Amino acid sequence: MEKNRGRVTIPTDVDVIQDTLELSARWGADAVRDCDGTDFPVELKDAGMKVYSTYYTTRKDNAWAKANPDEIQQMYVMTPFYTAEGDTLRIRLMEGLYPDMLTPNSRDDITRWWEVVDRTAGETVLPADWRYEEETGEVVVTTRPFHDYTVSFLAYIMWDPVHMYNAVVNDWKDVEHQMTFDVRQPKTHAYTMERLRKFIAEHPYVNVLRFTTFFHQFTLLFDELAREKYVEWYGYSASVSPYILEQFEREAGYPFRPEYIIDQGYYNNQYRIPTKQFRDFQAFQRREVAKIAKEMVDICHECGKEAMMFLGDHWIGTEPFMDEFKTIGLDAVVGSVGNGATLRLISDIEGVKYTEGRFLPYFFPDTFHEGGDPVKEAKYNWVTARRAILRKPIDRIGYGGYLKLAVAFPDFVDYVESVCAEFRELYENIKGTTPYCVKRVAVLNCWGKMRAWGNHMVHHSIYFKQNYSYAGIIEALSGAPFDVKFISFADILENEDILKEIDVIINVGEADTAQTGGEWWCNPEIAAAIKKFVYDGGGLIGVGEPSGHQANGRFFQLANVLGVEEERNFTLGYDKYNWENHDHFITEDAPGEIDFGECKKYVYALADTEVLVSKEQEVNLAVHAFGRGRSVYISGLPYSFENSRLLYRAILWSTGEEKNIYKWFSSNYNVEVHAYIKNNKYCVVNNTYEPQFTTVYRGDGSSFELRLDANQIVWYEI
Amino acid sequence: MEKNRGRVTIPTDVDVIQDTLELSARWGADAVRDCDGTDFPVELKDAGMKVYSTYYTTRKDNAWAKANPDEIQQMYVMTPFYTAEGDTLRIRLMEGLYPDMLTPNSRDDITRWWEVVDRTAGETVLPADWRYEEETGEVVVTTRPFHDYTVSFLAYIMWDPVHMYNAVVNDWKDVEHQMTFDVRQPKTHAYTMERLRKFIAEHPYVNVLRFTTFFHQFTLLFDELAREKYVEWYGYSASVSPYILEQFEREAGYPFRPEYIIDQGYYNNQYRIPTKQFRDFQAFQRREVAKIAKEMVDICHECGKEAMMFLGDHWIGTEPFMDEFKTIGLDAVVGSVGNGATLRLISDIEGVKYTEGRFLPYFFPDTFHEGGDPVKEAKYNWVTARRAILRKPIDRIGYGGYLKLAVAFPDFVDYVESVCAEFRELYENIKGTTPYCVKRVAVLNCWGKMRAWGNHMVHHSIYFKQNYSYAGIIEALSGAPFDVKFISFADILENEDILKEIDVIINVGEADTAQTGGEWWCNPEIAAAIKKFVYDGGGLIGVGEPSGHQANGRFFQLANVLGVEEERNFTLGYDKYNWENHDHFITEDAPGEIDFGECKKYVYALADTEVLVSKEQEVNLAVHAFGRGRSVYISGLPYSFENSRLLYRAILWSTGEEKNIYKWFSSNYNVEVHAYIKNNKYCVVNNTYEPQFTTVYRGDGSSFELRLDANQIVWYEI
Repeated sequence: MEKNRGRVTIPTDVDVIQDTLELSARWGADAVRDCDGTDFPVELKDAGMKVYSTYYTTRKDNAWAKANPDEIQQMYVMTPFYTAEGDTLRIRLMEGLYPDMLTPNSRDDITRWWEVVDRTAGETVLPADWRYEEETGEVVVTTRPFHDYTVSFLAYIMWDPVHMYNAVVNDWKDVEHQMTFDVRQPKTHAYTMERLRKFIAEHPYVNVLRFTTFFHQFTLLFDELAREKYVEWYGYSASVSPYILEQFEREAGYPFRPEYIIDQGYYNNQYRIPTKQFRDFQAFQRREVAKIAKEMVDICHECGKEAMMFLGDHWIGTEPFMDEFKTIGLDAVVGSVGNGATLRLISDIEGVKYTEGRFLPYFFPDTFHEGGDPVKEAKYNWVTARRAILRKPIDRIGYGGYLKLAVAFPDFVDYVESVCAEFRELYENIKGTTPYCVKRVAVLNCWGKMRAWGNHMVHHSIYFKQNYSYAGIIEALSGAPFDVKFISFADILENEDILKEIDVIINVGEADTAQTGGEWWCNPEIAAAIKKFVYDGGGLIGVGEPSGHQANGRFFQLANVLGVEEERNFTLGYDKYNWENHDHFITEDAPGEIDFGECKKYVYALADTEVLVSKEQEVNLAVHAFGRGRSVYISGLPYSFENSRLLYRAILWSTGEEKNIYKWFSSNYNVEVHAYIKNNKYCVVNNTYEPQFTTVYRGDGSSFELRLDANQIVWYEI
Repeated sequence: MEKNRGRVTIPTDVDVIQDTLELSARWGADAVRDCDGTDFPVELKDAGMKVYSTYYTTRKDNAWAKANPDEIQQMYVMTPFYTAEGDTLRIRLMEGLYPDMLTPNSRDDITRWWEVVDRTAGETVLPADWRYEEETGEVVVTTRPFHDYTVSFLAYIMWDPVHMYNAVVNDWKDVEHQMTFDVRQPKTHAYTMERLRKFIAEHPYVNVLRFTTFFHQFTLLFDELAREKYVEWYGYSASVSPYILEQFEREAGYPFRPEYIIDQGYYNNQYRIPTKQFRDFQAFQRREVAKIAKEMVDICHECGKEAMMFLGDHWIGTEPFMDEFKTIGLDAVVGSVGNGATLRLISDIEGVKYTEGRFLPYFFPDTFHEGGDPVKEAKYNWVTARRAILRKPIDRIGYGGYLKLAVAFPDFVDYVESVCAEFRELYENIKGTTPYCVKRVAVLNCWGKMRAWGNHMVHHSIYFKQNYSYAGIIEALSGAPFDVKFISFADILENEDILKEIDVIINVGEADTAQTGGEWWCNPEIAAAIKKFVYDGGGLIGVGEPSGHQANGRFFQLANVLGVEEERNFTLGYDKYNWENHDHFITEDAPGEIDFGECKKYVYALADTEVLVSKEQEVNLAVHAFGRGRSVYISGLPYSFENSRLLYRAILWSTGEEKNIYKWFSSNYNVEVHAYIKNNKYCVVNNTYEPQFTTVYRGDGSSFELRLDANQIVWYEI
């Protein structure tokens, strides 16, 4: 590979042919792509770049959709709660929903596929007690007064949600609404394979089919005003149809209920502790999606093309960290990079030849307008992602959107040029090697590897008040010198020995969510396994409400290990005397006030616990010895370089390794050191936008002083 | 009654005879009392004052206790949680407990009365798998590795906890530890009645037997350092013995388990949703305590003495708001007054001839020392309690402690003189009448009238961070012009018609506690009854996490009525657009930032709700119409005059009565107006320590301007 070229993908359009050529030369792009809403100019087919083409398996063919309305994709939707005032209630299904997007499916047997639920009694209403009025779009329910009711119904997706989103955001005029058809169903399945072959035949210059994506959109709904109403990037509620569900019933061996998908209106979002039925359904979907995706990939290969999957949009069922994924046979995965965690969401994927990160900002008018500052966004994006790239690199980077918008910002074009060069250099330096790992860390929750790196993320790098204090842990880990695993409670039940491959377990999040485990902690096997792990010398880091679930006299089920408990009023009668703060190894780089984020939780320390930070009788940070192991409690830890260092020290301390901190280490927490022993390289990287001074410690403990420019990365031979 | 004398009780001691006479003249005291640790000087018996004598039914007779060790009182204690490291665990019972206070009871059958619980599995350990080692004081348990264990055991109370507390606080030297004997058991029962008769015979000058109290101490434990370890003023865990529990078994018709009292170590504290077994036990205790207390009262009456009960210490089982209480036949109740709510805790008691409030500060060295400011405490106490006295007066006031300490503070003596005079005046003006009530308000929780006014109070007027924001509601109500009831969910199930006598229901506290109801809300009868109540025009005020319990797609089970829901991560995927604040009738007297206290709860408004105060996407105050009724959500409301006004307005608005606010009303919320129609009086009272200006509105809406001095109360004829 040339030093100034390669590993970069540039977007194009028919109106920017010359710009594409100029910029691809400057950025060293060796691949060119179209996007949703742009077209590939055939003039570029011989420009010496690989050509990617977006390919939509489920849309951009309304003729087919209209001819086969029974195979238009469907989703489960639950109405809001309605209180019955008497013995009849009329519920308009489309209330609060964007009318053009959905049409209730009354073609199939609604008594089987819809469900009216008395949410006050927690009971399903018998079909005899409700009916659908097609003309008003209302379900009429015979009710018990002052009970609350919901209707769960199937609806056809008449406008693909992502197409709609792009159309609304970019203010596309007079665009035909793209319908989504269901590749899982027989007619569309057969047609789809032919359609793919036809596309390939008609686009001989395309080298890479960039599937956007396969078959099922994550859950995305819009309200009457076309505003986003509900989104769950991990949501499976738009991957359903009677055809699919009947197949599921046969495989699962028990009858399907809409409630398995509706989940009380929570749609099995990633905070919900997954039920057996939902896990069964996910596994079924993974198998089926992999099977059909493989067919498409095989066609690509047969036609001499590469197959690339976009990790987003219709990605449901692919689950790149699960075993079925590898069987698809994809060449590559590309995904959007918002920060370190989203980078690892892509770069940690196995079973493909290469991974590619789509960097921000998108060349869309929301950033690229008069007065916009795309360089700032790009810098933040690159520096944030770079931490993670240094741990586990993607193989390529790229951009998306309208190139002509970017061209109008010369500073931005310059900055991207420097990013591309820096990426190629670091890739060259670290390729094929595992960076030096200080410890093996496992994040324990209900999802395990299926949601690796995605924990606490609503989607991409979007966080809420309710989760940024926990997401900070995951973001810190994404660029930290640890071997990071994500394990589930079920993994432990299946094979307790997996704990032997782990130095530190992290349980992070709010009580009674999938992130901390809820009632899983009432399984004595789980609780005993974790206690044994720590007792035998393991480290435990609990953040927020670790092991939180009210049962058996405890809220924190691991209170005896963590040395802290949360006051949920039930222990107000117990006097608490352990509030004094102590200096500690963990807080040595945090002399000021530590930012613990949102979490204000009435956590108190048990008698033999060492409190490091408590304020107004609330513990934010405490440590506790248990057997030969150690645990650290942190109330919350938003991502920052300082907090990242605190977590680093906590992990070291929890394993009794505080003496070994001065190895591949920077005294200044704004600067990090990564070593690639096999390649005989190490780098020192300034994560900030200002110059930094630091003392750099090599692997043998020797050190030197260093000044780095803003954002600078410096490479050394070991 | 003379204007300058009466309705006041003064404490005395053998060393302050002359002071007692002088102060009783100045304060107008017509009764004199001894205290724990003081003695009554017989010289005062003819001073023209009624003589109260403390009487301890269960202590101050160690000779009896020592002669009958099997009838010394007992309590249930649970050890901390211990994690088994292997297959044996040794648990020292007295670890962390004050050694002189308790002795484990191994006299009775420990396999029946003790319990070893595997708290990890939630299972009782069979007696075959554990034994007690008398010599080490340890229970030896055969364990499953890494399970947590606790031991529940019975212990004799070798030092009465209140006697111990008084001894420690006052640094009494060389005092013999008073043991507590169990009046419920046959020998002691018979002896006690004789002992009472003997006491009366030996103290002919005593007019009033002030029982301190009857038979069972509330739960109170001390640690090795004699510090308070656990306290629950409502606790029943020190009212047990095999004798009592066998009797309970026979009555209840099912076998007793220690866990019914131990309750996972939570000791059925007032935040715990009471189990059936605990409610059965309480009812049993009420019946039995009333029966024996009545015997003692009857003896007093037979001997021509009055019987007064102190509401505190050994008050367990008396439950003054429950039906059994009236059958005791007491003449009076006296209790400690810390604020308005504690005042009502006494003054609302029915079935006695008079009630008496013991005001603060206690004449103890903790306040009455060089540099102490007892006047400040007394002022705060009086002005706070006065609000409640004006709604429902006690009949007498009094003080306790060492009079000689008070004498050294002449300002304090002066201030108490003014308080006594003011109390007599207001008592005269309001006696025998019900003050004007604007609305009928019911606080709904699991306890109902049994815990009237005591909600959210740890004991007396002591609050924690975790509850002051809820206790503020109760304190505001204690002095507000409403007819206040406390009702339970069971009351509604028993007779839904009780809701017809109510204008506004208040549900206040944290989710899944007895204060808000927890799983009671999953009973459709309850949920539907409350919804119907509001729909038909009732008002609903939810504070904190009203109806909070995760089930059926809701955290706030009344979300549809309240118009708000709490984000518990499960609805993060739903976009929320309703955050704009609106001006409103409820906030008209709160132009600045409102103090909502602790509560930061991620509450959001549903679409058709009117948000009054939200900050950083958290709703603190919102209103919602439901049928003909209205609901108000408040995240928390610490007590203040301003917040008290806000609650007043919320109650009026919730019943659609905002037009009628200008009746018996003060424009300045620091000043309150109370009308006593039957007595043709009304008063205007300045609750602050500064002068206030206000416009006073009479019942007919006419008004006048008024300036009041600090704390001033002005009386008018209607």
